[in-house]
Amino acid sequence: MNILLECVPCFARQALDAVVEAVPDPGLREPILRRLLHEIADADWSGTPPAMAQRLHRAIRRELGHPDPYRAVKDRMNETARQLVPAMRARIAAHPDPREAAVRVAIGGNLLDVGAKTQIAAEDLSAHLETIWTQPLRGDLEGLFRAAERAHSILYLADNAGEIFFDRLLIEQLPAEKITVFMRGAPVLNDATAVDAEAAGLPEIAPVLDNGSDAPGTILEDCSRDFRDWFDRADLIIAKGQGNYETLSDVDRNIFFLFTVKCPLVAGRVGEPVGSLVVKPGRMQIEANEDSP
Amino acid sequence: MNILLECVPCFARQALDAVVEAVPDPGLREPILRRLLHEIADADWSGTPPAMAQRLHRAIRRELGHPDPYRAVKDRMNETARQLVPAMRARIAAHPDPREAAVRVAIGGNLLDVGAKTQIAAEDLSAHLETIWTQPLRGDLEGLFRAAERAHSILYLADNAGEIFFDRLLIEQLPAEKITVFMRGAPVLNDATAVDAEAAGLPEIAPVLDNGSDAPGTILEDCSRDFRDWFDRADLIIAKGQGNYETLSDVDRNIFFLFTVKCPLVAGRVGEPVGSLVVKPGRMQIEANEDSP
Repeated sequence: MNILLECVPCFARQALDAVVEAVPDPGLREPILRRLLHEIADADWSGTPPAMAQRLHRAIRRELGHPDPYRAVKDRMNETARQLVPAMRARIAAHPDPREAAVRVAIGGNLLDVGAKTQIAAEDLSAHLETIWTQPLRGDLEGLFRAAERAHSILYLADNAGEIFFDRLLIEQLPAEKITVFMRGAPVLNDATAVDAEAAGLPEIAPVLDNGSDAPGTILEDCSRDFRDWFDRADLIIAKGQGNYETLSDVDRNIFFLFTVKCPLVAGRVGEPVGSLVVKPGRMQIEANEDSP
Repeated sequence: MNILLECVPCFARQALDAVVEAVPDPGLREPILRRLLHEIADADWSGTPPAMAQRLHRAIRRELGHPDPYRAVKDRMNETARQLVPAMRARIAAHPDPREAAVRVAIGGNLLDVGAKTQIAAEDLSAHLETIWTQPLRGDLEGLFRAAERAHSILYLADNAGEIFFDRLLIEQLPAEKITVFMRGAPVLNDATAVDAEAAGLPEIAPVLDNGSDAPGTILEDCSRDFRDWFDRADLIIAKGQGNYETLSDVDRNIFFLFTVKCPLVAGRVGEPVGSLVVKPGRMQIEANEDSP
């Protein structure tokens, strides 16, 4: 889905968040924020929102001369998630439907960034994470697991650091032997890269590769040739996070989008309110279902 | 109060609102919004938020080659207010404390811009306006009327079109013979100018002048010499709207600020939550009260 004029104030807010989180010297924040506003004003507005975020975060890394200004944030997210994994695994096992529980955990893992940003206490974060269990879970949960059973080859497109530990818990409920996990190709925002997959022990249960791109989403034309071959050949793609939805929702492939709805425009498109956890079949799946009664 | 980094996304939102409301040709909105973002990025960030809004709206008028792009919006606001005046006057008269009621009406008149923006139906607006009576009214209502009794010369600094009709209802509860009403000196946003005061029949009950400035607030150094003389000589200044609070809250004069708190940063400073109606004594008043028990 492409950028609308309504996205522009949100880009300015993302730019503010980025300088507050990624620029340690408060004296540098104002000049960098000014440059980011010029970037927004000069950017191509015909792409997707993650293309704008890619541009903003490239500019921040350039300004700071630092290849990964969110490394410390990501480390905190990973550490928080690592501590939560045993409790989450136990809750999944005890749940009447462990597969639903694992999906809730994997989508809800997104909330870890709140903890990382504000460095809130572990007990407060736990309270916050309770919303994973109470928020409506919309979409086609059964369809996801049915498609995974049928598929021969599954791509799992990861999203954030921290969350990647919870992705592992979902992959354990899926036919893991068919799955290849793809990370971002280079640091951007708090998105997970190979080093985070390693921290989560993901290579122990599935091959882990990267998509060759530094966009906080999956902009196919910006990804490596190798990734695009995998993408074209896979029977099923499980895409985590709103950024992957924004960049892949118009692509005609067999995709399930798993994410928390964070933006009112995405909410309008998905047909679910902000805050919902969704398991959203992509366009192709919807068409296939319409063909076969 | 001066601009903080946190204000920047809000300026982008104000720029978006402005192009949507003031630029009739949708094809012009994107290029103008891009230019406004550059304006924000290049502006002086050491002033007050209304100084930024002044700059943005000057740019919009320049881009459109139109001296008053909000004229139609203001006319709708005036017309809506005009229709509501009899009911509001009756509610004030029937209220156990007509002075409190008149203050609520004058502050709540601010809500008329919602109706004007969205062109919501009159009955929906009436429901919306009911919040005037239920929102907490904070500050020093008694102090305002006591100060008005004591004063020899009162300036009343108006805020928006539409709302100006309700200002008249408050002025009727004050010693009107002491009051001079000041309007913005030129069109900016949906702020009231002399023509709106005329529409509201204000000159029938008090002299109406203007401050010589096109800022959506009162930036003293940008106002006419004449206005500043009035400002310095007045015993009491009643300043309507958050823009006047943002620009005058640090000025050592006898001021009461009457406004709806719309911004979390202002809320923090005022000590009242967003949405509150406040009658906030200025710095000098607070000091005087501390001196005399």
